[in-house]
Amino acid sequence: MVLVRHGESEWNKENRFTGWYDVQLSEKGIAEAKEGGRLLKEAGFTFDKAYTSVLRRAIKTCWLVLEEMDLMWIPVEKAWQLNERHYGALQGLDKNETVAKHGKDQVHIWRRSYDIPPPPLEKNNPHYPGNDVRYGQLLQRETPVTESLKTTLDRVVPFWEKVIKPDVTAGKGLLIAAHGNSLRALVKKLDNIPDSDITELNIPTGTPLVYELDSEFKPIKHKESIGPLSGRYLGNQEAIKARILGVKNQTK
Amino acid sequence: MVLVRHGESEWNKENRFTGWYDVQLSEKGIAEAKEGGRLLKEAGFTFDKAYTSVLRRAIKTCWLVLEEMDLMWIPVEKAWQLNERHYGALQGLDKNETVAKHGKDQVHIWRRSYDIPPPPLEKNNPHYPGNDVRYGQLLQRETPVTESLKTTLDRVVPFWEKVIKPDVTAGKGLLIAAHGNSLRALVKKLDNIPDSDITELNIPTGTPLVYELDSEFKPIKHKESIGPLSGRYLGNQEAIKARILGVKNQTK
Repeated sequence: MVLVRHGESEWNKENRFTGWYDVQLSEKGIAEAKEGGRLLKEAGFTFDKAYTSVLRRAIKTCWLVLEEMDLMWIPVEKAWQLNERHYGALQGLDKNETVAKHGKDQVHIWRRSYDIPPPPLEKNNPHYPGNDVRYGQLLQRETPVTESLKTTLDRVVPFWEKVIKPDVTAGKGLLIAAHGNSLRALVKKLDNIPDSDITELNIPTGTPLVYELDSEFKPIKHKESIGPLSGRYLGNQEAIKARILGVKNQTK
Repeated sequence: MVLVRHGESEWNKENRFTGWYDVQLSEKGIAEAKEGGRLLKEAGFTFDKAYTSVLRRAIKTCWLVLEEMDLMWIPVEKAWQLNERHYGALQGLDKNETVAKHGKDQVHIWRRSYDIPPPPLEKNNPHYPGNDVRYGQLLQRETPVTESLKTTLDRVVPFWEKVIKPDVTAGKGLLIAAHGNSLRALVKKLDNIPDSDITELNIPTGTPLVYELDSEFKPIKHKESIGPLSGRYLGNQEAIKARILGVKNQTK
């Protein structure tokens, strides 16, 4: 099973809080996704199925990886449960302006606390997911107006248990192209990472993260794994470590 | 329901018989697919689901149309039943060289007869679909070594009946991105076109063909429809008529 975080988006570049806003990949993000696909192909990987979110930056990343690997024909399942954490009323705001307005400590809490969500979105806000046809099948109680990493797990983990795990059991090789926080949620579950540690874990964009699971879905620790993750990243390990640190410094 | 034939491929451009060979779109084909998506968006279309083949020229066309329409998030079902007609032992050969070798009349029969297939592919041929992992689920008797338009219908029509029709019944707006002959098979069924006429019907690349169906799945004849088709093409009608004639002249 290989996880890949979408490449840089237009709003990563502009340093804005994105959440469920459906922003495009930047040119750099497109190049990152292609490079991820190239690394996977070069390392001899193949997949039977791919999962992604319903947000275009993850879907495009998935498509670019599959195109690079000559695997465009495999089934791709898109699920809102793999979406980025919903950033509530912060969606669309500039990260540095938000720091100036609310203070570095408050923004750090919203970004990095495990269970404190940003202020909720009003339902008459155009960003409210209930106003978007792609979330038309969701019950109102399922439709987030804001999420913490903890409540993100409340949708990612059941999706893992009910939908993805049966594919793993069936022996399928899986690609999961998703987002910083939906992937944090997934690796927290897989590697049983404590609440206090997971928010400091950074997953670099466009970099394939390879997990091997045993028959009980327990990850097999790889000798090149970094930090609390059992999986290993494909690519230049020193460059990857530098990028993991880079993600941390966005509001510094 | 909107049908779209994939844009120009590298082998359309090189004037080679393609069939199930998994060739890429050309730059022109990419532009055609985007233009198809732009026309659909401009005309106010939206879709709930897309169908395509397992060949990358159709999948890429599908993806480009959906990207242009901001519909990347809808489900896309890929099915070998929507593949191009299998061209048997002709796959990979230059169309004009094949005319020089076998004569114009014989090639015209292989290209345009309803029920005479080209010579079959040997099973040890690298093009034999049974050697390709994407067709691993097919039974040997389902795996074609050559197809006529008639035998193409034998897989397209059941797929229409069993898989696509229930979506139409459910009221879904559908995009079907496929190939010259799988779309011929589908419109033959929809519009009940005689065997003798269907092989002369040309569907231009990258041009959305819009079908409205009544409650009995009978197409509603549009006032801008061309020839035996009930559906209408989106775009400049004179240019489309010229392109329909262009497809006919490839071996002249």
